Amino acid sequence: MTLDAVLSRIDDTLPEATDRLMDLLRIASISTDPAYNGDCAQAAAWLVQELKSLGFSASARPTPGHPMVVGRHAGEGRHILFYGHYDVQPVDPIELWERDPFDPVIQQGPKGPLIRARGASDDKGQLMTFLEACRAWKDVHGELPGNLTIFFEGEEESGSPSLIPFLQENREELSADLALICDTGLFSDHIPAIVTMLRGLAKVEFTIRAASKDLHSGMFGGVAINPIRVLTRILGGLHDDQGRVQVPGFYDDVAELPDAVAAQWQALGFDHASFLGGVDLTTPAGEVDRTPLEQIWSRPTAEINGIWGGYTGAGFKTVLPSQASAKVSFRLVSGQDPDKILPAFKAWIEAQLPPDCELIWSEPEGSPASTMSITDPAFDAARAALSDEWERPAAFVGCGGSIPIAGYFKEYLGMDAMLIGFGRDDDQIHSPNEKYDLESFHKGIRSWARILDRLSQQ
Amino acid sequence: MTLDAVLSRIDDTLPEATDRLMDLLRIASISTDPAYNGDCAQAAAWLVQELKSLGFSASARPTPGHPMVVGRHAGEGRHILFYGHYDVQPVDPIELWERDPFDPVIQQGPKGPLIRARGASDDKGQLMTFLEACRAWKDVHGELPGNLTIFFEGEEESGSPSLIPFLQENREELSADLALICDTGLFSDHIPAIVTMLRGLAKVEFTIRAASKDLHSGMFGGVAINPIRVLTRILGGLHDDQGRVQVPGFYDDVAELPDAVAAQWQALGFDHASFLGGVDLTTPAGEVDRTPLEQIWSRPTAEINGIWGGYTGAGFKTVLPSQASAKVSFRLVSGQDPDKILPAFKAWIEAQLPPDCELIWSEPEGSPASTMSITDPAFDAARAALSDEWERPAAFVGCGGSIPIAGYFKEYLGMDAMLIGFGRDDDQIHSPNEKYDLESFHKGIRSWARILDRLSQQ
Repeated sequence: MTLDAVLSRIDDTLPEATDRLMDLLRIASISTDPAYNGDCAQAAAWLVQELKSLGFSASARPTPGHPMVVGRHAGEGRHILFYGHYDVQPVDPIELWERDPFDPVIQQGPKGPLIRARGASDDKGQLMTFLEACRAWKDVHGELPGNLTIFFEGEEESGSPSLIPFLQENREELSADLALICDTGLFSDHIPAIVTMLRGLAKVEFTIRAASKDLHSGMFGGVAINPIRVLTRILGGLHDDQGRVQVPGFYDDVAELPDAVAAQWQALGFDHASFLGGVDLTTPAGEVDRTPLEQIWSRPTAEINGIWGGYTGAGFKTVLPSQASAKVSFRLVSGQDPDKILPAFKAWIEAQLPPDCELIWSEPEGSPASTMSITDPAFDAARAALSDEWERPAAFVGCGGSIPIAGYFKEYLGMDAMLIGFGRDDDQIHSPNEKYDLESFHKGIRSWARILDRLSQQ
Repeated sequence: MTLDAVLSRIDDTLPEATDRLMDLLRIASISTDPAYNGDCAQAAAWLVQELKSLGFSASARPTPGHPMVVGRHAGEGRHILFYGHYDVQPVDPIELWERDPFDPVIQQGPKGPLIRARGASDDKGQLMTFLEACRAWKDVHGELPGNLTIFFEGEEESGSPSLIPFLQENREELSADLALICDTGLFSDHIPAIVTMLRGLAKVEFTIRAASKDLHSGMFGGVAINPIRVLTRILGGLHDDQGRVQVPGFYDDVAELPDAVAAQWQALGFDHASFLGGVDLTTPAGEVDRTPLEQIWSRPTAEINGIWGGYTGAGFKTVLPSQASAKVSFRLVSGQDPDKILPAFKAWIEAQLPPDCELIWSEPEGSPASTMSITDPAFDAARAALSDEWERPAAFVGCGGSIPIAGYFKEYLGMDAMLIGFGRDDDQIHSPNEKYDLESFHKGIRSWARILDRLSQQ
């Protein structure tokens, strides 16, 4: 039976597949920092070659930002589009990395071998699981599976500025019957998951400016307003002591979790103690009247992702800075509109500004949450395929992260998406020493082979 | 009459005196940053040569930090010690400087010619006023005035770590009858001042640490505590809405201003609108029930001088940082003990830490406020000399800045100090584009000549 042959082929060629992933991981494709534009272009070119070597017709499409990679195999059956992103997060604080983030290595971890590098899990290792499944399939069947379009983005970690125009301009080419998105994780070490709820994201950077220049606290201390004092006073009131966000209207459009979903989540027996324990924390810090799973999957948040002002170098400087800044983001849930949340946040800040303080508001940006329609039989097919591979029933789960692409596919291409991934909670994505378990990579490839096999029978 | 001859000599040689100051300003003696250790040593050596050229026996004395410069002229009369510091503040934000901070230039300012450079006013320009007065005096009299010790420090802008041990080890040599300190300013453009009240300073840097590493807000957002949220909540409560510092016991030992002093200050007619207007501010930000002069001279403050945490680079990173930090300083007044204030601040923070948060407390440091005894006849002599030069009665004033040296001279050498300086409020010390008016330099030299003349007659 050919599925078994494909799975054996995957097992036999794992070393070569791993080497190909290592090549991609050596490219420092940090999309948010213009200093790495060349690396992003290089990663896109590498993927085009990879797709061509598999028999796809492929090209890197220029955008005002980083290129999009599109590959096409016109075969039989439902048109499936596979999405991943080749860009990665910045690496700071670099001093906390145990080695060069772009010099990947296979190390022995507590749970088995792992691949250590920035992007190993988010998202290069994950997107390669699908390409390697296609490669094994082709080796056995002599041709690629079904009717496939491959779509790799290079701006997922920097707000996807070029994505929507690209989807609009290439609507016809990219509109498939179903999208597969590989940028999520397992529910736990051994329980595979299909994400059906995704939080949205609204973010903004702002600066509070007061005096026309930095001042000496000896001369002005006490009489001149200090923007850091204003910034901390305002952001210090962003949450109340119950963990609730204080921006007026923030919860107005938040839908309560359906009882059925709540029950299924309860059944997952989420162990928040070990989840938090993994990063040396013990106590859920969200809304006190919500379960930890609700706090990360179905409740909105407000987070200060960065703050800076005054003298931050070695030694001490008794300065009253002229300005102070912060980067703040909100995780949104179904019902919340980023175009209502961000203006409400801005108005809330402005209402608290003392005399002589000016608000400078830059690059507000948002994407709504999305909830998948799971009536498509592909969801049951994928669930069964994952259960076969992992020998545990796959779960329909929520995801605290924002993968706006799913919402955009629905909004601009009218296409549903199925989010399946093999990352683990301890992969340290967006953090120093990111890794991807070799098991995630190996069983991820096998999982896609099984899913493609089930879908080909529909 | 020889004073007139000395004053004429000062007028005639001003260009050469200015050139000597420019040479000193070209040395980037930033004491707080170890990268400039060599420059600090170079500034000390330059001053030793200058003192020797004037006929002082002089040397640079090594310390664990930057060298101390000591010059001695054993002459007649009361032993006077003159103090200044040759180190300067850092220059960041460098992008706000209109030119190289260490390439001094004479520019035409709105009120006349000025010298633009880091340290022009704080404190190189000021300490040179005294040396140039000595030079003119010697040119006319053939010898240096009276019985003089010169003492230049190189760590004033970085907490003077070596100062107290040095004073203790050289107690006999440095104990004079009176100290002259030139590190302060005029009361206003044309009213000279002698500072009789100085605020103290207590400062500390601290970090709040939570998770063992940076986290992804998609995975942990809502359930994991964010140290920036904790830091802003705590520092946001450092002042109440009346501008009062909330650290328990902060005001316990604060003495009220004597009515006589309050009345004299009232008579100075301080124009806070133009003082604040000079930096584009309008509204005093201190305790609402205190006058602006009290806010900067006789009331204690708490200031956040620096804050940093999370991602602060280009673009956006949805990170929950593992830690966040701040530099906080308190301006202290007579009665307050830094060794009580800093522990009270620490305890106040610890009492507000949520679960999973750890406080890392580094380099707490403080010096008390000091009030001069003005019964010494030298105060009246100096006041008269200044009034002669500026043709306005000199004022006894307070100073918001901390010049711990005055307190140390009293505590370790049993020596009173007279603080006289010629800086102006718009000198932008500790800020970009620092300057010193040529008039401050010129009339400052003339003022010291008059003071030395009066003191020589006592």
